[in-house]
Amino acid sequence: MKNYLLTPGPTPLAPEVVAAMAQPILYHRAKEFEHLFEQIRIDLRYLYETAGDVLLFTSSGTGAMEAAVCNVLSPDQKALVVRGGKFGERWAELCQAYHVKLECIDVEWGESVEPAQVQRHLEQDTEIRAVFVQASETSTGVAHDVQAIGEIVRKFPQTLLVVDAITAMGVSELRTDAWGLDIVVSGSQKGLMLPPGLAFASVSEKAWSFVERAQLPRYYFDFRAEQAAQRKLQNAFTPAISLIMGLAVALQLIRREGLEHVIARHARLARMTRAAVRALGLELLAKRAPSAAVTAVWNPPGVEGKAIVRGLHDRFGITIAGGQGKLSGKIFRLAHLGYVEAGDILMGIAALETVLAQLGVAVTPGSGVAAAEAEFTRNDG
Amino acid sequence: MKNYLLTPGPTPLAPEVVAAMAQPILYHRAKEFEHLFEQIRIDLRYLYETAGDVLLFTSSGTGAMEAAVCNVLSPDQKALVVRGGKFGERWAELCQAYHVKLECIDVEWGESVEPAQVQRHLEQDTEIRAVFVQASETSTGVAHDVQAIGEIVRKFPQTLLVVDAITAMGVSELRTDAWGLDIVVSGSQKGLMLPPGLAFASVSEKAWSFVERAQLPRYYFDFRAEQAAQRKLQNAFTPAISLIMGLAVALQLIRREGLEHVIARHARLARMTRAAVRALGLELLAKRAPSAAVTAVWNPPGVEGKAIVRGLHDRFGITIAGGQGKLSGKIFRLAHLGYVEAGDILMGIAALETVLAQLGVAVTPGSGVAAAEAEFTRNDG
Repeated sequence: MKNYLLTPGPTPLAPEVVAAMAQPILYHRAKEFEHLFEQIRIDLRYLYETAGDVLLFTSSGTGAMEAAVCNVLSPDQKALVVRGGKFGERWAELCQAYHVKLECIDVEWGESVEPAQVQRHLEQDTEIRAVFVQASETSTGVAHDVQAIGEIVRKFPQTLLVVDAITAMGVSELRTDAWGLDIVVSGSQKGLMLPPGLAFASVSEKAWSFVERAQLPRYYFDFRAEQAAQRKLQNAFTPAISLIMGLAVALQLIRREGLEHVIARHARLARMTRAAVRALGLELLAKRAPSAAVTAVWNPPGVEGKAIVRGLHDRFGITIAGGQGKLSGKIFRLAHLGYVEAGDILMGIAALETVLAQLGVAVTPGSGVAAAEAEFTRNDG
Repeated sequence: MKNYLLTPGPTPLAPEVVAAMAQPILYHRAKEFEHLFEQIRIDLRYLYETAGDVLLFTSSGTGAMEAAVCNVLSPDQKALVVRGGKFGERWAELCQAYHVKLECIDVEWGESVEPAQVQRHLEQDTEIRAVFVQASETSTGVAHDVQAIGEIVRKFPQTLLVVDAITAMGVSELRTDAWGLDIVVSGSQKGLMLPPGLAFASVSEKAWSFVERAQLPRYYFDFRAEQAAQRKLQNAFTPAISLIMGLAVALQLIRREGLEHVIARHARLARMTRAAVRALGLELLAKRAPSAAVTAVWNPPGVEGKAIVRGLHDRFGITIAGGQGKLSGKIFRLAHLGYVEAGDILMGIAALETVLAQLGVAVTPGSGVAAAEAEFTRNDG
């Protein structure tokens, strides 16, 4: 059966990227690799909208999240975590693993944090050394307003803002320097259209001063070692070379499309998906600020656990994600990020209508697709 | 220019592996992935000669080395490190990064540790909780006798033996269970014929009891989380899926050749290389116990720094490695591991002869190749 991915990672791979990764592997200390890596460093700064270093790690995104904790804090320092989904929980678990004192803003899953809440915490507790938040909480399909949070945190010289942008980078607007985001973490298998295995972290000047003083143990994820190596176009440890060969091409694809067009494309695909879901009488999980990467939808009444996910997979070869954590079996998630275009969304919606009807849900066949088409046309030009 | 890799990682990729990695990427929570992963777990146990879990991580080998430190020790506990090259130094640096008390057996670079030295240390200092050693020290091309060290350490119930087998796994004999090796670390870009980006660690029953009590912080590299997930054919965090698709094929290639034949092939390639180097009047770095993965050779007198490495690269498109750390500019390293056969070695030796002659070294053209051919024929059958 032909397979289609509408998952929030891995995302479909561009054929140009697949071809690049199938080339004979380069030696990571050869000049050929250094030339590739030099351009990658330039293109990552373009993607991140930063003048600083964007460091590359061979790991999943979680590895770079861990790096963002252990490189800036010391034992018994305090962190503030925005916890509004599974990945907010991951920030909290990481802080706990390193015995960092933890303060959480618990946000209802499906809600976006009120930036003023962050401000109140920072004003009331001057011991907070870092704020950890998601730009796009993949488990709920909600965006947190990291621009507004950046405006707040930059007023507190003793506090860093650390952003998980794993499903936001190359998907929605994210101005690292202009918004004052001190550390921005991303991964390869999302907007970057690559397989999983690479992760990235930008580090602001303010963050570097924390890195120098941080006492938490780190070695493989040490920002200092990687900055020193990567400025010399090396990596501290043997990196995932084939993925880096693909990365060079993926970044060129983004530059060719233009970052603002990439962002506009994702915004449109997200609007098409939400319009279709609403037209089908389904309820979005996101109460506001829906993510441009993934749309989370409540199962309609009477539809059990993973029936929709299973139906799309078994009948159409389409893989989507179910719910995670406490939303497992209650929602399904249609992703629309990476190497995805309008045709993929129309197909996914049409298949969804079919599966819903087969499950006995009262839907008007074609109504979801029609809504997506209308949204496509409204923005056409 | 056509490129040839005779480097100790990355190693050349088998075309079957490249083809598998170019297939449409699987979703890591789909049944198709679980079936693949189930067979991989079986095949990794075959490769490791263990009945226990072999855990997979998305990282370079160093990541799994870090895991082997932070999963078994607590702050202020003591470690014994065999330090006879750059990777022995890496064990020491990892222990220092985690504020573990460090005792080192410093072995001259090019020498193999005397196992009795390990025994003396363990007898004199009962506070040592883990011994860290390389099975093959890639920087010097020397093997340490981990079988003999295993016999010693198993007599000390309070002490684990942790082996870096990154250039030994799938290259030379390494009987994880039979030899009493508690944690064995390996990587994908060596004997496994894959690109870099995956690392592995076996964990003995004895080691698991240490893992439960260990107090060092860990999250991304947590053995407990990965054991729980991987026993359910999942990964705790999104793994490098395309590399795992290649891994499934690479492990089948090893099974088809048969592990003992794989080991015999590497032993023969190493003997061919050493015979050729000696016939050319060059001096091996390894005073004894040469590694089957890589042969380190002193630069002949009058040959400057990286001239040989550069000559092979520029004239023949052959990439070999130079020296690392304090051996930088003093040696060159011919690797013979992974997807490498006798023809590759004959080519490499012939090109080396040519480059040496061009550099003004007094060599008899053909003499190195002749010695390699003789060694090939001696073992032919």
